[in-house]
Amino acid sequence: VFGGYAVNRKNDDPKPLFLEDLHVGQRFTSGLYHLDSDQIKAFAAEFDLQPFHLDETAANDGVFHGLAASGWHTAAIPMRLLVTGDLPLACGLIGLGVEIVWSKPVRPGDMLKVESEITEISPSRTKPDRGAVKVRSVTINQNGDHVQAFIAKLLVFRHAADSEPLL
Amino acid sequence: VFGGYAVNRKNDDPKPLFLEDLHVGQRFTSGLYHLDSDQIKAFAAEFDLQPFHLDETAANDGVFHGLAASGWHTAAIPMRLLVTGDLPLACGLIGLGVEIVWSKPVRPGDMLKVESEITEISPSRTKPDRGAVKVRSVTINQNGDHVQAFIAKLLVFRHAADSEPLL
Repeated sequence: VFGGYAVNRKNDDPKPLFLEDLHVGQRFTSGLYHLDSDQIKAFAAEFDLQPFHLDETAANDGVFHGLAASGWHTAAIPMRLLVTGDLPLACGLIGLGVEIVWSKPVRPGDMLKVESEITEISPSRTKPDRGAVKVRSVTINQNGDHVQAFIAKLLVFRHAADSEPLL
Repeated sequence: VFGGYAVNRKNDDPKPLFLEDLHVGQRFTSGLYHLDSDQIKAFAAEFDLQPFHLDETAANDGVFHGLAASGWHTAAIPMRLLVTGDLPLACGLIGLGVEIVWSKPVRPGDMLKVESEITEISPSRTKPDRGAVKVRSVTINQNGDHVQAFIAKLLVFRHAADSEPLL
């Protein structure tokens, strides 16, 4: 939809993980996501119509001193990487909440990857088939710069859990 | 890109606001954003390829008991509303970070609006032309359900500020 992108899958046939397969300190590294200026502009045209996301010339005079991706675009890209196999949770990636910090602009031509670590596992007190898992991630560009950090709180099920209402 | 949507602008000719125009407790209400199943699926196909965001039948058996929008889609929609005039910051909406909580699924046919309140204003200690502003928002559907809450930390400039490097 936003033009082509290259995704180099890190993990082509990941073993699906359930709550009991996770532990604090467990790490995951994603494949790569290539972002170009057409993608940046297409996303911005839909959700973030600001000159520094839409037009190179206007962006040169703006606060980012050049075209930069919308933070919401930068936030969605890791999901693409994680959900296609780089964080292979068996029941999917179901977010309860997230904290994001945007620390550097994401530019046309950037090649992004995500490094993640499980920082907290909290079994549900009322529903024995599930728990909340905190995952701390950084999005890193081709120069090794951390462009974004985020901590997601995910709903994760035990093996053979029935599908019941959320939490 | 993701199909049509209806945006009823709340504020057609907003007065652009600078840091000195803002105060804690100031409130903003957005226009409406209509979301349909094609938009939900198109966004998910790009960024969040999970059955409960892509296919009604699969979604019926899934954790949301029906098709639901990706949380990243739900997160990006308020930006569309706010940046097109419903939070009329003169220098644009420049996010430093955000905390999001997703509390209810967003469904095809939902009509979303955003209610926002300024909760904190912190002038920069080193750069007198700018400050950080916290805005607490809720995304509300046509039934009055709060589907998402988020607190954004924005970079806001004083009037006639020069464009300088960020923070």
